[in-house]
Amino acid sequence: MRRVALVGAGMTPFKEHFDLGIKDLVPMAVTEMEATVDKGLDRGDIQAAWFGELSTTDGFPTGILADSCGLLDIPVSRVENACATGQDALRNAFYAVSSGYFDVALVVGADKVRETSSRATFWEWMGMTRDMAWDFPLGLVAPANFALHVQRYLHESPATKEHLAMIAVKNHMHALTNPKAQLRHTITVEQAMNAPMVAEPFGLFDCTPQSDGGAAVLIVGEEVVDRYTDKPVWIRGVGLGLDRVMHQHKVDMTMFPATQKAAKASFKMAGLMPKDIDVAEVHDCFTGVELISYEDLGFAERFEGYKLVEAHDTTVGGKIPVNPSGGLKGKGHPPGATGIAQCVELFEQLRGESTNQVEGAKVALAHNIGGPTAVAAVTILGSSKD
Amino acid sequence: MRRVALVGAGMTPFKEHFDLGIKDLVPMAVTEMEATVDKGLDRGDIQAAWFGELSTTDGFPTGILADSCGLLDIPVSRVENACATGQDALRNAFYAVSSGYFDVALVVGADKVRETSSRATFWEWMGMTRDMAWDFPLGLVAPANFALHVQRYLHESPATKEHLAMIAVKNHMHALTNPKAQLRHTITVEQAMNAPMVAEPFGLFDCTPQSDGGAAVLIVGEEVVDRYTDKPVWIRGVGLGLDRVMHQHKVDMTMFPATQKAAKASFKMAGLMPKDIDVAEVHDCFTGVELISYEDLGFAERFEGYKLVEAHDTTVGGKIPVNPSGGLKGKGHPPGATGIAQCVELFEQLRGESTNQVEGAKVALAHNIGGPTAVAAVTILGSSKD
Repeated sequence: MRRVALVGAGMTPFKEHFDLGIKDLVPMAVTEMEATVDKGLDRGDIQAAWFGELSTTDGFPTGILADSCGLLDIPVSRVENACATGQDALRNAFYAVSSGYFDVALVVGADKVRETSSRATFWEWMGMTRDMAWDFPLGLVAPANFALHVQRYLHESPATKEHLAMIAVKNHMHALTNPKAQLRHTITVEQAMNAPMVAEPFGLFDCTPQSDGGAAVLIVGEEVVDRYTDKPVWIRGVGLGLDRVMHQHKVDMTMFPATQKAAKASFKMAGLMPKDIDVAEVHDCFTGVELISYEDLGFAERFEGYKLVEAHDTTVGGKIPVNPSGGLKGKGHPPGATGIAQCVELFEQLRGESTNQVEGAKVALAHNIGGPTAVAAVTILGSSKD
Repeated sequence: MRRVALVGAGMTPFKEHFDLGIKDLVPMAVTEMEATVDKGLDRGDIQAAWFGELSTTDGFPTGILADSCGLLDIPVSRVENACATGQDALRNAFYAVSSGYFDVALVVGADKVRETSSRATFWEWMGMTRDMAWDFPLGLVAPANFALHVQRYLHESPATKEHLAMIAVKNHMHALTNPKAQLRHTITVEQAMNAPMVAEPFGLFDCTPQSDGGAAVLIVGEEVVDRYTDKPVWIRGVGLGLDRVMHQHKVDMTMFPATQKAAKASFKMAGLMPKDIDVAEVHDCFTGVELISYEDLGFAERFEGYKLVEAHDTTVGGKIPVNPSGGLKGKGHPPGATGIAQCVELFEQLRGESTNQVEGAKVALAHNIGGPTAVAAVTILGSSKD
C-alpha cells in the first residue's frame, strides 16, 4: 500500500472565539499549517480536502471550507463521527491519498461551541451524538454520559477520585507552555477535589472547557514528500471502532470497547505494540476517560491505570507521557478540531519541535472517544516510515 | 489503481414512513441490498461501512448503522455533503477499497424528512446546507434557492415553463413502473402548468416530494468480485465539485459550476465523454434543475437543453434517457439516500434488470447537486471494467 505522510500541521488558539466564525477559524488554521511546510506550499497543489466538523454554526460546511480558503476547484468532503470527527476525517483522507487518486490533501477540523448563531447552537446539535429515543431526552448529556462509566470504574477498580484530580493537575501543568492552549494555569489536587460538582464523580476540574478553534494538516503520498519537507511524519496506523449506542446495551461500563477495537486496528496496520509508543494524546474530555483509556490502549493492565498516575509515568519526563499539549482538559476541545489538533501536537513532538517536548519521541499515538461512548479513533504516527 | 465494483444494490420504498425511524430504514435497505448479491453475502465479510445521512433524527448516525445492522466490529464513517451526501459517501468508500485496505465495503444512505422527532426536525437542520449569516435567515429555503437560478435561466434561454412541465410529466410517467417510487401517478402538462405556485417559476409539480427512505450498495475490490456475482457493475468514475456558498457570489445564475467540475473529474477518471452515457439519473429536485443539468453534464449545448425535452430524447426509448426511476420528482428524495438510490437504479439498468429498462445500457451516470447550489457529485458506472 502507498505510504502517506504529514508534511504540515497547524492550529488556531483554542479559546472563546466569540468574535470569529467557522469562516474565520478554518482559513486561520490552514494558514498556520502552511507556515509549517518547510519547503513551502502553493495552495494550487492541494488536490482534495476533508473537513471534520460536528456542528455547523456558519452553514454549509464543505462549501465554507472551499470558499474561505480559496479552494473552489477541488473536492471537499465533510466527515462527522462525534468526538472522533477530526481523526476520522484524516482517516478518510489517508485512504484517498493511499489509493493514488490524490498526491496532496488537506484535512481541516473546526467547531464553535461557545456560540449562539442565528439558527443553531452547538448544544442543539448534541442529540446527534446520542440515542435520541431514550438516552438523550432522559438526560444523557456529555458529562452524564461519561460519568456513568467512570462512576462504575471507580467502584470496581482501586482508583479513586484523587487519581482523577492528579490527571487534571498534570494536564493543566502540561498546557502551561502551549501557546495555543485555553487553560494555561496550574491547579492543585485540593482545588480539583473541592471543585463544584458537575456530574458525580466529575467536579469542575475533571471536565474539558468549552472551546472554539480549528486545526489543519497536510498529507501527501510518499513519492512527493521530498517536495515539502525533509522531516515528514508518517501515518503508521489508522483505526476506528464502534460500540452499542444505548447505555442499556453496554456490556461492561468499566471499559470502552470502541477504543479497544480502534487501537487493535491501528496497531495491526502499524505493526506496533502499545510498548512502542513514546508519547500519546489521549481523549480526556473528562479525567476518568483518560484513566480508563490507559487500559483500553494497552498502556496499563486492567484496573491498574492508577499506577501510571501515581508513578507520574504519564507526565512529560515519565515513561509514557500523555497529553503533553495539555489535552482536551488544558488545551480545549472544539470537537471537530480536536483529533486534528492532537496530530498537530504529535507532528511537533516527532520533529522535536514541541513546546513541551518528549525527548527522543519516535512513535506517537492519538486517541479520541465520542458520542455515546460508541465510537473511537486511534491514529499512530512515526518519525520513520517503518 | 485498483478497480472497484458494485455487487449488490437495494433500497426501501421512498414514501412517508411516519411509523419507521432511521433505525428501521437502514437495516431494511441493507437487507434489500443483500437480496441482490447473486452468490450471497455473509455480513461478516463486510470490513467497513460508510453512512450518508444529512439530518439525524434518531441520533448518532454511525453507531445507529453499526447497531441496527449488527456491524459492531467494523469502522463506520458518516459523510455529509448536502444533497450530494449519498454519492460522496460512495466516493469515500471507493477510495478506501481502491487503496487496498478493504476488500468489501457497505455504503448506506438514509434520511427522514417527514418527521418531527423529539429533538430535531429535518427542517431545523436545513440551515446547515446554506449560508447561515445571510442567505438562509433571509429566506433561501430549498425552492427559493434553486428558483433564483431557474428564473434567470428561463429569462436568458429559449426554454419556457412548459418545458419544465414536460420534465415533470416524463418523470411521473417513469415512476409508474417503479415499485419503490413515492409518486406513482401520471400528470399532464396542463396540470403542471396550472398547479399552485411554490416559488416562481416552480409550481407544485415542479418540486420533489418530501420523502423518507434508505438505500444501500455493496462495493468490492476487483480480485474478490467473483465471490459475489458474475454481473458486477464497475465504478468507472467519481467526481465532486464545489462552488461559492453565497448567492451574491455566483458568477452566472444560469449554470451550476459545481456540476461542471464534478462531471469533468468523473469523465476524466472514466476516460469517457458525455456521448458515451446510455442512461442517467439526474438531480431533479426541481424540474428546472434537471434542464440546466443537461447542459452542465454535456448532454446538450448551452441553452439548448429544451431541445432534448421537445424531442423526448430524455424519455425512456429516447437517445439519452434521464431518470428512468422517476427521479427525485417521481421516486422521492430523502437526501442522504438519494445518491445511493440513483446507483441502485443504475445497477439494475446495467444488469438489464430495471422495471423501466433502457435497452442495451452499458454506461450510466448519476448526478446530484445540493446545498446552496455549491456542491455536486457525478458517478459513472459501467457494465464492463473499461
